[in-house]
Amino acid sequence: MEVEGETARVNLNRAFDPTAFSLDASFRLVRYADPKGSTCKVPQKVLLNLLSILHPDTSAKDQDGEVSHVEGPRIGIGLDCAVIPLKYDVCLVQTTDLCYPIIDDPYMMGKIASANVLSDLYAMGVTECDNMLMLVGVSTKMKERERDVIMPLIYRGFSDSALEAGTNISGGHTTINPWCTIGGVASSVCRRNEFIVPDNVMVGDVIVLTKPVGTQVALAAYNWIDKPKLWRRIKKFMSEEMVRKTYFQAVNSMARLNRTAARLMHKYNAHGATDITGFGLLGHAQTLAARQKQEVAFVIHNLPVFGLLAEVAKSSRGVFELIEGLSPETSGGLLICLPREQANAYCKEILKEEGHRAWIIGFVERGNRTARIIAIHNP
Amino acid sequence: MEVEGETARVNLNRAFDPTAFSLDASFRLVRYADPKGSTCKVPQKVLLNLLSILHPDTSAKDQDGEVSHVEGPRIGIGLDCAVIPLKYDVCLVQTTDLCYPIIDDPYMMGKIASANVLSDLYAMGVTECDNMLMLVGVSTKMKERERDVIMPLIYRGFSDSALEAGTNISGGHTTINPWCTIGGVASSVCRRNEFIVPDNVMVGDVIVLTKPVGTQVALAAYNWIDKPKLWRRIKKFMSEEMVRKTYFQAVNSMARLNRTAARLMHKYNAHGATDITGFGLLGHAQTLAARQKQEVAFVIHNLPVFGLLAEVAKSSRGVFELIEGLSPETSGGLLICLPREQANAYCKEILKEEGHRAWIIGFVERGNRTARIIAIHNP
Repeated sequence: MEVEGETARVNLNRAFDPTAFSLDASFRLVRYADPKGSTCKVPQKVLLNLLSILHPDTSAKDQDGEVSHVEGPRIGIGLDCAVIPLKYDVCLVQTTDLCYPIIDDPYMMGKIASANVLSDLYAMGVTECDNMLMLVGVSTKMKERERDVIMPLIYRGFSDSALEAGTNISGGHTTINPWCTIGGVASSVCRRNEFIVPDNVMVGDVIVLTKPVGTQVALAAYNWIDKPKLWRRIKKFMSEEMVRKTYFQAVNSMARLNRTAARLMHKYNAHGATDITGFGLLGHAQTLAARQKQEVAFVIHNLPVFGLLAEVAKSSRGVFELIEGLSPETSGGLLICLPREQANAYCKEILKEEGHRAWIIGFVERGNRTARIIAIHNP
Repeated sequence: MEVEGETARVNLNRAFDPTAFSLDASFRLVRYADPKGSTCKVPQKVLLNLLSILHPDTSAKDQDGEVSHVEGPRIGIGLDCAVIPLKYDVCLVQTTDLCYPIIDDPYMMGKIASANVLSDLYAMGVTECDNMLMLVGVSTKMKERERDVIMPLIYRGFSDSALEAGTNISGGHTTINPWCTIGGVASSVCRRNEFIVPDNVMVGDVIVLTKPVGTQVALAAYNWIDKPKLWRRIKKFMSEEMVRKTYFQAVNSMARLNRTAARLMHKYNAHGATDITGFGLLGHAQTLAARQKQEVAFVIHNLPVFGLLAEVAKSSRGVFELIEGLSPETSGGLLICLPREQANAYCKEILKEEGHRAWIIGFVERGNRTARIIAIHNP
């Protein structure tokens, strides 16, 4: 289904113009990393193998490709964040993430990187981040002039996002490496009632998603405008203007914080949540289902997608696994399980507060801790 | 002066043998990063410039090349760690660092990277680290077989060091990039009496150093054994065997935690400390002097150096600035200012507990918050 109501808001967006900063018109930030279109992560299987040497019994891999080898009595292996119980009756909730440039606008890329880091805290219902560290890898291939223009814009985007989140950046490091990287660490020290351990999902719960999916497809479609062979796949369904609009929708969505979504999880008694990133909607839904205390299964029957990207993806199966729920997302929305009677109110309040829709995308039934898509709205 | 008493302990050390892991004999971990022999950091001047766009009034750069742009009432800009006062009457003390491989032994490299991260906490007298994140960049240039052998050894070294420090690794990320990087984040949540803000140095204090200096020269000398032209600089002063011995002394020193040194800072009423890393002994001493409340100046008259590296450095001025106190160190010791009458007891107790010497290297006089070396023991 197309996401309406989002389109109107993005007409102010423009592509990043390198010449406005006296850089060559051909400058493209995305070229300063070459992970072959794949995720910036080491493949999960390889990583698990590399880490297995450490602590064979306790090593675990959370759904964001993070290393979680846990010793002693810690809360929840495989959460979006590490949660470390401390003295003084508080817990340290902490997460880190890092990405390569996926768009050419350095300021927006900084915002996306920050939103992406913070999203793991928000997935656990933590709304107050006490500190962020900024971790930046400057590309050795950037000319000095490029570096001196581009990196401060990335920093500013990251920092503005942190301010928007009500937190600060105190500490970090900037190193050099052939590929550019942007990421950080988000930490929160809180009492147990300030976060929601996502293992309490009940039969009868409803599943809500707070951002559309399709960021990877949106970026690809936009990059294919200049590539006639690839553009053929797109133009049957979307005009160049529609692709541009959808691209900026996706960029703004990735830069948007999941903070309001996290706060309302408490108000509406959410039983568990996760954020949608590299493993796609279904991948993360499956991880969340697998960690439940109750014998539940998630059924997803509704797939909110940016623009007409669902049509594009359907005609390019094997290239995009969007309809299958497996297309990687960057800084996606929260997938939240909450009591059926609260779901509508949750969606209404988030729309009122943020001006962005959330969607009821499925329900929870009795089952064997798995998730599946029955996309009745996308037959 | 040569450091005696250290040499005997390192005779068990051997160079890393790639063939023992079915790798090619020519495998060298240090080749998987090429920062031109310099530090892994972006030059300080460049970094300050890049960051200046953010918050012109408050941006500051701490002495470990870390980004510290601080908003609001935080404790101490330019400390070794970020210190963030929180609700619940506690503070979050946090630091991050990252290095390229500087030795070929992956296990020891992991230990050094961990000790290097933790050292910033120890410099502030924080002895309990509540969590570490491990941040690893796998080189895209490693063959699969190399990666699958080398990276787990790095992880294990990092993890063993964390266990030694009484902490755990919960979280982190492993990404890919042409250059290999190893680092992490160390966080501690503590009350104000658990850390020592290093701004209370007094006239009459004595300066103690807990590890010798010369790590960079030790690594260079070792790498020059096979390079006849460069080896000529060394062989006038040290035999091949002495260079190897000194190298392993330095490696073990870099892997050693500054934790006991930190704990004893409380017992012996230290007025302030810092750890010695990329800016060399004098560079860090100057940074510490500059942040003092009192009008003090540091005078350093004693330079404990690994093996005979002082002689090597003296004959290669311009190449090594070791005697000048400016040779970069990795995971160096703590430089601690404490009351004169406590210094001997501090050094005695650390030797008794750890089996490693600490040295009184100077004193504090009235002055304009600077530091200088008058190397009377190295005329």
